[in-house]
Amino acid sequence: MPDMTDNSPGNSRTPVTVLGLGPMGQALAAAFLAAGHPTTVWNRTPGKAAGLTGAVVAASAAEAVAASPLVVVCVIDYDATDAILDSAADELTGRTVVNLTADTPERARRTAEWAAAHGIDYLDGAIMTPTVTIGGPDAVFLYSGPRSLYDDHSPTLAALGGTATHLGEDPGRAAAHDVALLGIFWTAMTGIMHAFALAKAENIAAADLAGFARGISDLLSPSLDALAANVDSGNHPGTFSNVTSAAASLEHIIHASERNGLDAAVLKAAHALARQAIEDGHGGDDYSRLADTLRTHATR
Amino acid sequence: MPDMTDNSPGNSRTPVTVLGLGPMGQALAAAFLAAGHPTTVWNRTPGKAAGLTGAVVAASAAEAVAASPLVVVCVIDYDATDAILDSAADELTGRTVVNLTADTPERARRTAEWAAAHGIDYLDGAIMTPTVTIGGPDAVFLYSGPRSLYDDHSPTLAALGGTATHLGEDPGRAAAHDVALLGIFWTAMTGIMHAFALAKAENIAAADLAGFARGISDLLSPSLDALAANVDSGNHPGTFSNVTSAAASLEHIIHASERNGLDAAVLKAAHALARQAIEDGHGGDDYSRLADTLRTHATR
Repeated sequence: MPDMTDNSPGNSRTPVTVLGLGPMGQALAAAFLAAGHPTTVWNRTPGKAAGLTGAVVAASAAEAVAASPLVVVCVIDYDATDAILDSAADELTGRTVVNLTADTPERARRTAEWAAAHGIDYLDGAIMTPTVTIGGPDAVFLYSGPRSLYDDHSPTLAALGGTATHLGEDPGRAAAHDVALLGIFWTAMTGIMHAFALAKAENIAAADLAGFARGISDLLSPSLDALAANVDSGNHPGTFSNVTSAAASLEHIIHASERNGLDAAVLKAAHALARQAIEDGHGGDDYSRLADTLRTHATR
Repeated sequence: MPDMTDNSPGNSRTPVTVLGLGPMGQALAAAFLAAGHPTTVWNRTPGKAAGLTGAVVAASAAEAVAASPLVVVCVIDYDATDAILDSAADELTGRTVVNLTADTPERARRTAEWAAAHGIDYLDGAIMTPTVTIGGPDAVFLYSGPRSLYDDHSPTLAALGGTATHLGEDPGRAAAHDVALLGIFWTAMTGIMHAFALAKAENIAAADLAGFARGISDLLSPSLDALAANVDSGNHPGTFSNVTSAAASLEHIIHASERNGLDAAVLKAAHALARQAIEDGHGGDDYSRLADTLRTHATR
Protein backbone atom coordinates (compact mmCIF):
# COMPACT_ATOMS: atom_id res chain seq x y z
CA MET A 1 0.00 0.00 0.00
CA PRO A 2 1.49 3.39 -0.96
CA ASP A 3 2.52 5.83 1.71
CA MET A 4 -0.08 8.57 1.25
CA THR A 5 2.09 11.12 3.01
CA ASP A 6 4.97 10.67 0.56
CA ASN A 7 5.56 13.96 -1.23
CA SER A 8 8.53 12.74 -3.28
CA PRO A 9 8.42 13.64 -6.97
CA GLY A 10 6.42 11.19 -9.02
CA ASN A 11 4.15 10.07 -6.27
CA SER A 12 0.66 11.03 -7.38
CA ARG A 13 0.29 12.96 -4.11
CA THR A 14 3.11 15.34 -5.08
CA PRO A 15 1.55 18.82 -5.03
CA VAL A 16 1.89 20.84 -8.21
CA THR A 17 1.31 24.51 -8.86
CA VAL A 18 0.29 25.79 -12.31
CA LEU A 19 0.80 29.49 -13.03
CA GLY A 20 -1.16 30.74 -16.04
CA LEU A 21 -4.61 29.47 -17.02
CA GLY A 22 -4.88 30.21 -20.70
CA PRO A 23 -6.16 27.27 -22.75
CA MET A 24 -2.81 25.44 -22.42
CA GLY A 25 -2.38 26.20 -18.72
CA GLN A 26 -5.90 24.91 -18.06
CA ALA A 27 -5.10 21.71 -19.97
CA LEU A 28 -1.92 21.22 -17.93
CA ALA A 29 -3.73 21.76 -14.61
CA ALA A 30 -6.53 19.41 -15.67
CA ALA A 31 -3.97 16.69 -16.48
CA PHE A 32 -2.30 17.03 -13.07
CA LEU A 33 -5.70 16.90 -11.35
CA ALA A 34 -6.72 13.85 -13.40
CA ALA A 35 -3.55 12.07 -12.28
CA GLY A 36 -4.44 12.78 -8.65
CA HIS A 37 -1.95 15.55 -7.87
CA PRO A 38 -3.09 18.21 -5.37
CA THR A 39 -3.06 21.15 -7.78
CA THR A 40 -2.89 24.82 -6.94
CA VAL A 41 -3.56 27.31 -9.72
CA TRP A 42 -3.24 31.03 -10.28
CA ASN A 43 -3.94 33.34 -13.20
CA ARG A 44 -3.28 37.06 -13.55
CA THR A 45 -6.94 37.70 -14.29
CA PRO A 46 -9.31 35.63 -12.12
CA GLY A 47 -12.17 33.39 -13.21
CA LYS A 48 -10.18 30.97 -15.37
CA ALA A 49 -10.29 28.01 -12.96
CA ALA A 50 -14.03 27.33 -13.26
CA GLY A 51 -13.54 24.07 -15.17
CA LEU A 52 -10.79 22.76 -12.89
CA THR A 53 -12.73 20.77 -10.30
CA GLY A 54 -10.62 20.10 -7.22
CA ALA A 55 -8.01 22.76 -7.93
CA VAL A 56 -7.06 25.17 -5.17
CA VAL A 57 -7.23 28.71 -6.51
CA ALA A 58 -4.55 30.95 -5.02
CA ALA A 59 -4.92 34.71 -4.60
CA SER A 60 -1.40 35.48 -5.79
CA ALA A 61 1.47 33.85 -7.63
CA ALA A 62 3.48 33.86 -4.39
CA GLU A 63 0.69 32.08 -2.52
CA ALA A 64 0.34 29.53 -5.34
CA VAL A 65 4.09 28.87 -5.38
CA ALA A 66 4.18 28.28 -1.61
CA ALA A 67 1.78 25.35 -1.98
CA SER A 68 4.02 23.04 -4.04
CA PRO A 69 7.62 21.94 -4.55
CA LEU A 70 7.04 21.92 -8.34
CA VAL A 71 5.80 25.04 -10.14
CA VAL A 72 4.75 24.81 -13.80
CA VAL A 73 4.51 28.09 -15.71
CA CYS A 74 2.66 28.49 -19.01
CA VAL A 75 1.87 32.06 -20.03
CA ILE A 76 1.98 34.16 -23.20
CA ASP A 77 5.74 34.88 -23.34
CA TYR A 78 8.83 35.33 -21.16
CA ASP A 79 8.02 38.96 -20.36
CA ALA A 80 4.98 37.56 -18.56
CA THR A 81 6.96 34.61 -17.12
CA ASP A 82 9.68 36.86 -15.74
CA ALA A 83 7.21 39.29 -14.15
CA ILE A 84 5.34 36.46 -12.44
CA LEU A 85 8.48 34.67 -11.22
CA ASP A 86 9.92 37.95 -9.97
CA SER A 87 6.77 38.63 -7.95
CA ALA A 88 7.24 35.27 -6.19
CA ALA A 89 11.05 35.09 -6.08
CA ASP A 90 11.27 34.66 -2.30
CA GLU A 91 8.76 31.82 -2.20
CA LEU A 92 10.40 30.12 -5.21
CA THR A 93 13.80 29.72 -3.55
CA GLY A 94 14.49 26.02 -3.07
CA ARG A 95 11.64 24.97 -5.34
CA THR A 96 11.65 23.85 -8.98
CA VAL A 97 10.20 25.87 -11.85
CA VAL A 98 9.29 24.09 -15.07
CA ASN A 99 8.69 26.81 -17.63
CA LEU A 100 6.52 25.60 -20.52
CA THR A 101 6.00 29.10 -21.92
CA ALA A 102 7.06 29.50 -25.58
CA ASP A 103 9.70 32.10 -26.46
CA THR A 104 13.23 32.28 -27.86
CA PRO A 105 16.28 30.24 -26.74
CA GLU A 106 17.92 33.48 -25.64
CA ARG A 107 15.07 34.31 -23.26
CA ALA A 108 15.08 30.75 -21.88
CA ARG A 109 18.79 31.07 -21.06
CA ARG A 110 18.26 34.46 -19.47
CA THR A 111 15.41 33.22 -17.25
CA ALA A 112 17.54 30.19 -16.27
CA GLU A 113 20.30 32.58 -15.18
CA TRP A 114 17.82 34.62 -13.15
CA ALA A 115 16.57 31.44 -11.47
CA ALA A 116 20.12 30.29 -10.64
CA ALA A 117 20.87 33.68 -9.09
CA HIS A 118 17.81 33.28 -6.85
CA GLY A 119 18.49 29.70 -5.75
CA ILE A 120 15.62 28.35 -7.85
CA ASP A 121 15.93 25.04 -9.73
CA TYR A 122 14.90 25.60 -13.33
CA LEU A 123 13.89 23.42 -16.26
CA ASP A 124 12.79 24.91 -19.55
CA GLY A 125 10.29 23.11 -21.70
CA ALA A 126 8.27 23.33 -24.92
CA ILE A 127 4.93 21.80 -25.80
CA MET A 128 4.87 20.65 -29.43
CA THR A 129 1.22 19.54 -29.70
CA PRO A 130 -2.18 21.26 -29.32
CA THR A 131 -4.03 21.62 -26.01
CA VAL A 132 -6.37 18.73 -26.84
CA THR A 133 -3.44 16.29 -26.72
CA ILE A 134 -2.40 17.18 -23.15
CA GLY A 135 -2.78 14.25 -20.75
CA GLY A 136 -3.21 11.79 -23.64
CA PRO A 137 -0.81 9.62 -25.63
CA ASP A 138 -0.21 12.13 -28.45
CA ALA A 139 1.24 14.97 -26.39
CA VAL A 140 4.88 15.86 -27.13
CA PHE A 141 7.05 17.69 -24.58
CA LEU A 142 10.66 18.82 -24.91
CA TYR A 143 12.76 19.72 -21.87
CA SER A 144 16.23 21.15 -21.34
CA GLY A 145 18.25 22.05 -18.27
CA PRO A 146 19.96 19.99 -15.54
CA ARG A 147 19.52 16.29 -16.25
CA SER A 148 19.28 15.35 -12.58
CA LEU A 149 16.50 17.87 -12.08
CA TYR A 150 14.65 16.41 -15.05
CA ASP A 151 15.09 12.89 -13.68
CA ASP A 152 13.71 14.01 -10.30
CA HIS A 153 10.56 15.53 -11.75
CA SER A 154 9.84 13.49 -14.86
CA PRO A 155 7.63 11.05 -12.89
CA THR A 156 5.39 13.99 -11.92
CA LEU A 157 5.56 15.55 -15.38
CA ALA A 158 4.45 12.17 -16.77
CA ALA A 159 0.94 13.19 -15.66
CA LEU A 160 0.95 15.50 -18.72
CA GLY A 161 0.91 12.41 -20.96
CA GLY A 162 2.51 11.60 -24.29
CA THR A 163 6.24 11.51 -24.84
CA ALA A 164 8.83 13.69 -23.18
CA THR A 165 12.43 14.15 -24.28
CA HIS A 166 15.28 15.72 -22.32
CA LEU A 167 17.40 17.49 -24.94
CA GLY A 168 20.44 18.52 -22.90
CA GLU A 169 21.75 20.77 -20.17
CA ASP A 170 21.61 24.04 -22.17
CA PRO A 171 18.35 25.57 -20.92
CA GLY A 172 17.80 27.17 -24.37
CA ARG A 173 17.75 23.86 -26.21
CA ALA A 174 14.02 23.12 -25.83
CA ALA A 175 13.19 26.65 -27.01
CA ALA A 176 15.62 26.29 -29.92
CA HIS A 177 13.76 23.17 -31.05
CA ASP A 178 10.46 24.96 -30.42
CA VAL A 179 11.18 27.97 -32.64
CA ALA A 180 12.64 25.79 -35.41
CA LEU A 181 9.69 23.41 -35.39
CA LEU A 182 7.03 26.11 -35.06
CA GLY A 183 8.65 27.80 -38.05
CA ILE A 184 7.76 24.72 -40.09
CA PHE A 185 4.24 24.69 -38.71
CA TRP A 186 3.36 28.34 -39.32
CA THR A 187 5.10 28.52 -42.69
CA ALA A 188 3.23 25.43 -43.86
CA MET A 189 -0.04 26.74 -42.42
CA THR A 190 0.47 29.99 -44.35
CA GLY A 191 1.09 27.95 -47.49
CA ILE A 192 -2.13 26.05 -46.89
CA MET A 193 -4.10 29.28 -46.47
CA HIS A 194 -2.57 30.60 -49.69
CA ALA A 195 -3.62 27.41 -51.47
CA PHE A 196 -7.19 27.70 -50.21
CA ALA A 197 -7.30 31.37 -51.27
CA LEU A 198 -5.94 30.55 -54.73
CA ALA A 199 -8.35 27.64 -55.09
CA LYS A 200 -11.32 29.84 -54.20
CA ALA A 201 -10.20 32.48 -56.69
CA GLU A 202 -10.21 29.69 -59.30
CA ASN A 203 -13.71 28.57 -58.20
CA ILE A 204 -12.44 25.47 -56.43
CA ALA A 205 -13.96 24.90 -52.96
CA ALA A 206 -11.38 24.66 -50.20
CA ALA A 207 -13.05 21.41 -49.14
CA ASP A 208 -12.42 19.98 -52.63
CA LEU A 209 -8.76 20.99 -52.50
CA ALA A 210 -8.29 19.60 -48.98
CA GLY A 211 -8.18 15.97 -50.08
CA PHE A 212 -5.43 16.67 -52.59
CA ALA A 213 -3.68 18.92 -50.06
CA ARG A 214 -3.49 15.96 -47.71
CA GLY A 215 -1.56 14.09 -50.39
CA ILE A 216 0.90 16.97 -50.69
CA SER A 217 1.28 17.32 -46.94
CA ASP A 218 1.93 13.58 -46.67
CA LEU A 219 4.86 13.94 -49.11
CA LEU A 220 6.77 16.04 -46.57
CA SER A 221 7.45 13.65 -43.68
CA PRO A 222 9.07 10.84 -45.70
CA SER A 223 11.60 13.25 -47.22
CA LEU A 224 12.77 14.84 -43.96
CA ASP A 225 15.57 12.42 -43.11
CA ALA A 226 17.18 12.63 -46.54
CA LEU A 227 16.92 16.44 -46.62
CA ALA A 228 18.39 16.63 -43.10
CA ALA A 229 21.29 14.41 -44.18
CA ASN A 230 21.98 16.84 -47.04
CA VAL A 231 21.98 19.79 -44.65
CA ASP A 232 24.25 18.09 -42.12
CA SER A 233 26.74 16.94 -44.78
CA GLY A 234 26.62 20.11 -46.89
CA ASN A 235 26.08 17.92 -49.97
CA HIS A 236 22.92 18.60 -51.95
CA PRO A 237 23.20 16.21 -54.90
CA GLY A 238 20.00 17.24 -56.69
CA THR A 239 18.42 13.79 -56.65
CA PHE A 240 15.13 15.27 -55.42
CA SER A 241 13.55 18.23 -57.21
CA ASN A 242 16.28 20.79 -57.77
CA VAL A 243 16.34 24.50 -56.96
CA THR A 244 15.91 25.60 -60.59
CA SER A 245 12.73 23.59 -61.07
CA ALA A 246 11.45 24.75 -57.67
CA ALA A 247 12.04 28.36 -58.72
CA ALA A 248 10.12 27.74 -61.97
CA SER A 249 7.28 26.23 -59.98
CA LEU A 250 7.25 29.18 -57.57
CA GLU A 251 7.10 31.56 -60.54
CA HIS A 252 3.99 29.80 -61.82
CA ILE A 253 2.35 29.98 -58.40
CA ILE A 254 3.21 33.68 -57.95
CA HIS A 255 1.98 34.47 -61.44
CA ALA A 256 -1.33 32.63 -60.93
CA SER A 257 -1.74 34.24 -57.50
CA GLU A 258 -1.17 37.80 -58.68
CA ARG A 259 -3.42 37.29 -61.69
CA ASN A 260 -6.11 36.34 -59.20
CA GLY A 261 -5.42 39.41 -57.06
CA LEU A 262 -3.83 37.57 -54.14
CA ASP A 263 -0.99 38.72 -51.91
CA ALA A 264 1.99 36.54 -52.89
CA ALA A 265 4.56 37.98 -50.46
CA VAL A 266 5.36 34.66 -48.74
CA LEU A 267 5.88 32.90 -52.07
CA LYS A 268 7.95 35.81 -53.38
CA ALA A 269 10.24 35.58 -50.37
CA ALA A 270 10.71 31.85 -51.00
CA HIS A 271 11.32 32.55 -54.70
CA ALA A 272 13.91 35.25 -53.92
CA LEU A 273 15.76 32.73 -51.78
CA ALA A 274 15.72 30.12 -54.53
CA ARG A 275 16.90 32.75 -57.04
CA GLN A 276 19.77 33.63 -54.71
CA ALA A 277 20.81 29.96 -54.55
CA ILE A 278 20.73 29.79 -58.36
CA GLU A 279 22.82 32.98 -58.64
CA ASP A 280 25.30 31.35 -56.27
CA GLY A 281 25.63 28.49 -58.77
CA HIS A 282 23.48 25.97 -56.90
CA GLY A 283 20.54 25.66 -59.31
CA GLY A 284 21.12 21.94 -59.83
CA ASP A 285 21.23 21.21 -56.11
CA ASP A 286 18.46 19.77 -54.00
CA TYR A 287 16.19 22.36 -52.39
CA SER A 288 17.96 21.54 -49.11
CA ARG A 289 20.70 23.91 -50.35
CA LEU A 290 18.43 26.75 -49.17
CA ALA A 291 19.24 25.94 -45.53
CA ASP A 292 22.74 27.20 -46.40
CA THR A 293 21.47 30.14 -48.46
CA LEU A 294 19.42 31.34 -45.47
CA ARG A 295 22.65 31.61 -43.49
CA THR A 296 24.90 33.13 -46.13
CA HIS A 297 22.50 35.81 -47.39
CA ALA A 298 20.90 37.03 -44.20
CA THR A 299 21.41 40.68 -45.11
CA ARG A 300 19.06 40.52 -48.06
CA MET B 1 -7.28 -13.87 -77.37
CA PRO B 2 -6.94 -10.10 -77.89
CA ASP B 3 -6.92 -8.65 -81.37
CA MET B 4 -3.29 -7.55 -81.65
CA THR B 5 -4.11 -5.10 -84.40
CA ASP B 6 -6.62 -3.17 -82.26
CA ASN B 7 -5.39 0.40 -81.88
CA SER B 8 -8.37 1.63 -79.84
CA PRO B 9 -7.48 3.65 -76.75
CA GLY B 10 -6.75 1.52 -73.72
CA ASN B 11 -5.58 -1.50 -75.62
CA SER B 12 -1.98 -2.03 -74.59
CA ARG B 13 -1.06 -1.89 -78.30
CA THR B 14 -2.23 1.73 -78.55
CA PRO B 15 0.82 3.70 -79.71
CA VAL B 16 1.80 6.63 -77.54
CA THR B 17 4.19 9.52 -78.21
CA VAL B 18 6.00 11.29 -75.38
CA LEU B 19 7.45 14.75 -76.11
CA GLY B 20 10.05 15.88 -73.61
CA LEU B 21 12.51 13.57 -71.87
CA GLY B 22 13.45 15.37 -68.70
CA PRO B 23 13.32 13.18 -65.60
CA MET B 24 9.51 13.25 -65.57
CA GLY B 25 9.14 12.68 -69.32
CA GLN B 26 11.49 9.71 -69.11
CA ALA B 27 9.43 8.26 -66.25
CA LEU B 28 6.23 8.67 -68.29
CA ALA B 29 7.75 6.98 -71.36
CA ALA B 30 9.13 4.14 -69.23
CA ALA B 31 5.66 3.54 -67.75
CA PHE B 32 4.05 3.37 -71.22
CA LEU B 33 6.77 0.98 -72.38
CA ALA B 34 6.37 -1.18 -69.28
CA ALA B 35 2.64 -1.44 -70.00
CA GLY B 36 3.40 -2.67 -73.55
CA HIS B 37 2.52 0.45 -75.52
CA PRO B 38 4.56 1.10 -78.67
CA THR B 39 6.21 4.32 -77.53
CA THR B 40 7.78 7.01 -79.67
CA VAL B 41 9.85 9.67 -77.94
CA TRP B 42 11.44 12.99 -78.79
CA ASN B 43 13.45 15.56 -76.88
CA ARG B 44 14.73 18.95 -77.99
CA THR B 45 18.28 17.94 -77.13
CA PRO B 46 19.12 14.36 -78.14
CA GLY B 47 20.61 11.58 -76.02
CA LYS B 48 17.91 11.45 -73.36
CA ALA B 49 16.33 8.15 -74.48
CA ALA B 50 19.26 5.88 -73.56
CA GLY B 51 17.40 4.25 -70.67
CA LEU B 52 14.18 3.72 -72.60
CA THR B 53 14.63 0.24 -74.03
CA GLY B 54 12.19 -0.39 -76.86
CA ALA B 55 11.29 3.25 -77.45
CA VAL B 56 11.39 4.60 -80.99
CA VAL B 57 13.39 7.81 -81.03
CA ALA B 58 12.02 10.36 -83.51
CA ALA B 59 14.15 12.99 -85.24
CA SER B 60 11.57 15.75 -84.78
CA ALA B 61 8.47 16.53 -82.75
CA ALA B 62 6.41 16.31 -85.96
CA GLU B 63 7.80 12.85 -86.79
CA ALA B 64 7.12 11.70 -83.21
CA VAL B 65 3.55 13.03 -83.31
CA ALA B 66 2.83 11.22 -86.59
CA ALA B 67 3.51 7.85 -84.93
CA SER B 68 0.64 7.89 -82.39
CA PRO B 69 -2.98 8.94 -81.88
CA LEU B 70 -2.12 10.06 -78.32
CA VAL B 71 0.66 12.58 -77.66
CA VAL B 72 1.80 13.24 -74.10
CA VAL B 73 3.80 16.43 -73.51
CA CYS B 74 5.91 17.05 -70.41
CA VAL B 75 8.44 19.88 -70.68
CA ILE B 76 9.67 22.78 -68.53
CA ASP B 77 6.79 25.22 -69.07
CA TYR B 78 4.11 26.28 -71.57
CA ASP B 79 6.50 28.46 -73.55
CA ALA B 80 8.27 25.20 -74.38
CA THR B 81 5.01 23.31 -74.84
CA ASP B 82 3.60 25.88 -77.23
CA ALA B 83 6.77 26.03 -79.33
CA ILE B 84 6.85 22.24 -79.70
CA LEU B 85 3.15 21.90 -80.47
CA ASP B 86 3.36 24.74 -82.99
CA SER B 87 6.24 22.98 -84.78
CA ALA B 88 4.02 19.91 -85.22
CA ALA B 89 0.63 21.58 -85.64
CA ASP B 90 -0.15 19.96 -89.01
CA GLU B 91 0.65 16.45 -87.78
CA LEU B 92 -1.32 17.03 -84.53
CA THR B 93 -4.62 17.75 -86.31
CA GLY B 94 -7.07 14.98 -85.45
CA ARG B 95 -4.89 13.61 -82.68
CA THR B 96 -5.11 14.06 -78.90
CA VAL B 97 -2.60 16.01 -76.86
CA VAL B 98 -2.37 15.35 -73.12
CA ASN B 99 -0.26 18.15 -71.69
CA LEU B 100 1.30 17.20 -68.35
CA THR B 101 3.59 20.24 -68.28
CA ALA B 102 3.22 22.42 -65.17
CA ASP B 103 2.28 26.08 -65.58
CA THR B 104 -0.55 28.47 -64.72
CA PRO B 105 -4.30 27.92 -65.31
CA GLU B 106 -4.25 30.89 -67.68
CA ARG B 107 -1.60 29.26 -69.89
CA ALA B 108 -3.47 25.95 -69.87
CA ARG B 109 -6.61 27.71 -71.12
CA ARG B 110 -4.64 29.53 -73.80
CA THR B 111 -3.00 26.35 -75.10
CA ALA B 112 -6.41 24.63 -75.10
CA GLU B 113 -7.75 27.47 -77.26
CA TRP B 114 -4.81 27.12 -79.64
CA ALA B 115 -5.44 23.38 -79.90
CA ALA B 116 -9.15 23.87 -80.60
CA ALA B 117 -8.29 26.36 -83.37
CA HIS B 118 -6.05 23.72 -84.97
CA GLY B 119 -8.50 20.81 -84.74
CA ILE B 120 -6.47 19.14 -82.00
CA ASP B 121 -8.17 17.37 -79.10
CA TYR B 122 -6.66 18.64 -75.88
CA LEU B 123 -6.56 17.50 -72.26
CA ASP B 124 -4.57 19.35 -69.65
CA GLY B 125 -3.06 17.49 -66.73
CA ALA B 126 -0.91 17.87 -63.66
CA ILE B 127 1.34 15.36 -61.94
CA MET B 128 1.20 15.76 -58.16
CA THR B 129 3.82 13.20 -57.13
CA PRO B 130 7.59 12.77 -57.75
CA THR B 131 9.05 10.93 -60.75
CA VAL B 132 9.75 7.80 -58.68
CA THR B 133 6.01 7.26 -58.21
CA ILE B 134 5.20 7.16 -61.93
CA GLY B 135 3.86 3.77 -63.05
CA GLY B 136 3.31 2.70 -59.44
CA PRO B 137 0.36 2.86 -57.04
CA ASP B 138 1.33 6.17 -55.40
CA ALA B 139 1.27 8.38 -58.50
CA VAL B 140 -1.39 11.13 -58.52
CA PHE B 141 -2.63 12.69 -61.77
CA LEU B 142 -5.17 15.47 -62.23
CA TYR B 143 -6.85 16.09 -65.60
CA SER B 144 -9.20 18.70 -66.98
CA GLY B 145 -10.82 19.28 -70.35
CA PRO B 146 -13.56 17.47 -72.28
CA ARG B 147 -14.93 14.59 -70.22
CA SER B 148 -15.54 12.35 -73.25
CA LEU B 149 -11.94 12.82 -74.36
CA TYR B 150 -10.76 11.86 -70.88
CA ASP B 151 -12.98 8.78 -70.91
CA ASP B 152 -11.59 7.76 -74.30
CA HIS B 153 -7.96 7.96 -73.21
CA SER B 154 -8.03 7.13 -69.51
CA PRO B 155 -7.49 3.40 -70.23
CA THR B 156 -4.21 4.28 -71.97
CA LEU B 157 -3.27 6.87 -69.33
CA ALA B 158 -3.82 4.17 -66.70
CA ALA B 159 -0.37 2.86 -67.74
CA LEU B 160 1.04 5.83 -65.77
CA GLY B 161 -0.22 4.21 -62.56
CA GLY B 162 -1.68 5.56 -59.34
CA THR B 163 -4.90 7.49 -59.17
CA ALA B 164 -6.25 9.88 -61.79
CA THR B 165 -9.04 12.40 -61.28
CA HIS B 166 -10.94 14.31 -63.96
CA LEU B 167 -11.67 17.71 -62.40
CA GLY B 168 -13.98 19.25 -64.98
CA GLU B 169 -14.29 20.65 -68.46
CA ASP B 170 -12.38 23.90 -67.81
CA PRO B 171 -8.91 23.10 -69.18
CA GLY B 172 -7.34 25.35 -66.54
CA ARG B 173 -8.73 23.39 -63.62
CA ALA B 174 -5.90 20.86 -63.31
CA ALA B 175 -3.32 23.66 -63.42
CA ALA B 176 -5.34 25.64 -60.85
CA HIS B 177 -5.12 22.68 -58.48
CA ASP B 178 -1.46 22.27 -59.38
CA VAL B 179 -0.39 25.82 -58.50
CA ALA B 180 -2.45 25.82 -55.30
CA LEU B 181 -1.04 22.48 -54.14
CA LEU B 182 2.54 23.20 -55.17
CA GLY B 183 2.26 26.42 -53.19
CA ILE B 184 1.73 24.31 -50.08
CA PHE B 185 4.64 22.06 -51.00
CA TRP B 186 7.24 24.75 -51.67
CA THR B 187 6.15 26.98 -48.81
CA ALA B 188 6.38 24.05 -46.41
CA MET B 189 9.72 22.96 -47.89
CA THR B 190 11.05 26.49 -47.36
CA GLY B 191 9.84 26.35 -43.75
CA ILE B 192 11.64 23.04 -43.30
CA MET B 193 14.88 24.49 -44.66
CA HIS B 194 14.53 27.46 -42.34
CA ALA B 195 14.05 25.08 -39.41
CA PHE B 196 17.17 23.12 -40.34
CA ALA B 197 19.16 26.35 -40.69
CA LEU B 198 17.93 27.63 -37.32
CA ALA B 199 18.63 24.28 -35.68
CA LYS B 200 22.19 24.24 -37.01
CA ALA B 201 22.75 27.81 -35.81
CA GLU B 202 21.68 26.55 -32.36
CA ASN B 203 24.07 23.56 -32.61
CA ILE B 204 21.27 21.07 -33.25
CA ALA B 205 21.95 18.61 -36.08
CA ALA B 206 19.31 18.65 -38.82
CA ALA B 207 19.08 14.87 -38.42
CA ASP B 208 18.18 15.33 -34.74
CA LEU B 209 15.50 17.88 -35.60
CA ALA B 210 14.05 15.71 -38.38
CA GLY B 211 12.30 13.28 -36.02
CA PHE B 212 10.50 16.11 -34.25
CA ALA B 213 9.83 17.81 -37.59
CA ARG B 214 7.97 14.68 -38.68
CA GLY B 215 5.67 15.15 -35.70
CA ILE B 216 4.97 18.74 -36.74
CA SER B 217 4.43 17.81 -40.38
CA ASP B 218 2.02 15.06 -39.31
CA LEU B 219 -0.10 17.66 -37.49
CA LEU B 220 -0.99 19.33 -40.80
CA SER B 221 -3.04 16.72 -42.66
CA PRO B 222 -5.60 16.02 -39.91
CA SER B 223 -6.48 19.72 -39.65
CA LEU B 224 -7.05 20.35 -43.38
CA ASP B 225 -10.74 19.48 -43.56
CA ALA B 226 -11.68 21.70 -40.62
CA LEU B 227 -9.60 24.61 -41.93
CA ALA B 228 -11.13 24.19 -45.40
CA ALA B 229 -14.62 24.23 -43.88
CA ASN B 230 -13.74 27.54 -42.19
CA VAL B 231 -12.54 29.00 -45.48
CA ASP B 232 -15.60 27.83 -47.43
CA SER B 233 -18.05 29.11 -44.79
CA GLY B 234 -16.20 32.33 -43.99
CA ASN B 235 -16.48 31.47 -40.27
CA HIS B 236 -13.21 31.20 -38.38
CA PRO B 237 -14.32 30.54 -34.80
CA GLY B 238 -10.87 30.46 -33.22
CA THR B 239 -11.19 26.95 -31.83
CA PHE B 240 -7.73 26.06 -33.16
CA SER B 241 -4.74 28.27 -32.44
CA ASN B 242 -5.80 31.84 -33.12
CA VAL B 243 -4.13 34.52 -35.26
CA THR B 244 -2.86 36.53 -32.26
CA SER B 245 -1.03 33.56 -30.76
CA ALA B 246 0.30 32.59 -34.20
CA ALA B 247 1.66 36.13 -34.61
CA ALA B 248 3.35 35.90 -31.18
CA SER B 249 4.87 32.59 -32.19
CA LEU B 250 6.10 34.02 -35.50
CA GLU B 251 7.69 36.94 -33.61
CA HIS B 252 9.67 34.49 -31.47
CA ILE B 253 10.83 32.58 -34.53
CA ILE B 254 11.84 35.76 -36.40
CA HIS B 255 13.65 37.06 -33.33
CA ALA B 256 15.55 33.81 -32.80
CA SER B 257 16.37 33.63 -36.53
CA GLU B 258 17.71 37.16 -36.80
CA ARG B 259 19.72 36.76 -33.60
CA ASN B 260 21.34 33.77 -35.30
CA GLY B 261 22.03 35.75 -38.47
CA LEU B 262 19.44 33.99 -40.64
CA ASP B 263 17.33 35.47 -43.42
CA ALA B 264 13.77 35.56 -42.01
CA ALA B 265 11.99 37.07 -45.03
CA VAL B 266 9.52 34.20 -45.49
CA LEU B 267 8.55 34.26 -41.82
CA LYS B 268 8.32 38.06 -41.87
CA ALA B 269 5.90 37.90 -44.80
CA ALA B 270 3.74 35.40 -42.89
CA HIS B 271 3.92 37.62 -39.80
CA ALA B 272 2.91 40.73 -41.77
CA LEU B 273 -0.13 38.84 -43.02
CA ALA B 274 -1.09 37.77 -39.49
CA ARG B 275 -0.57 41.36 -38.27
CA GLN B 276 -2.87 42.58 -41.04
CA ALA B 277 -5.58 40.14 -39.94
CA ILE B 278 -5.21 41.36 -36.34
CA GLU B 279 -5.43 45.00 -37.49
CA ASP B 280 -8.62 44.05 -39.32
CA GLY B 281 -10.06 42.88 -35.99
CA HIS B 282 -9.60 39.14 -36.56
CA GLY B 283 -6.96 38.35 -33.92
CA GLY B 284 -9.24 35.89 -32.13
CA ASP B 285 -10.08 34.00 -35.32
CA ASP B 286 -8.57 30.72 -36.47
CA TYR B 287 -5.50 31.08 -38.69
CA SER B 288 -7.77 30.08 -41.59
CA ARG B 289 -8.85 33.75 -41.58
CA LEU B 290 -5.62 34.46 -43.50
CA ALA B 291 -7.08 32.88 -46.63
CA ASP B 292 -9.41 35.91 -46.66
CA THR B 293 -6.67 38.38 -45.71
CA LEU B 294 -4.61 37.23 -48.71
CA ARG B 295 -7.48 38.28 -50.96
CA THR B 296 -8.41 41.55 -49.29
CA HIS B 297 -4.91 42.96 -48.85
CA ALA B 298 -3.22 42.00 -52.09
CA THR B 299 -1.83 45.48 -52.64
CA ARG B 300 0.35 45.29 -49.55
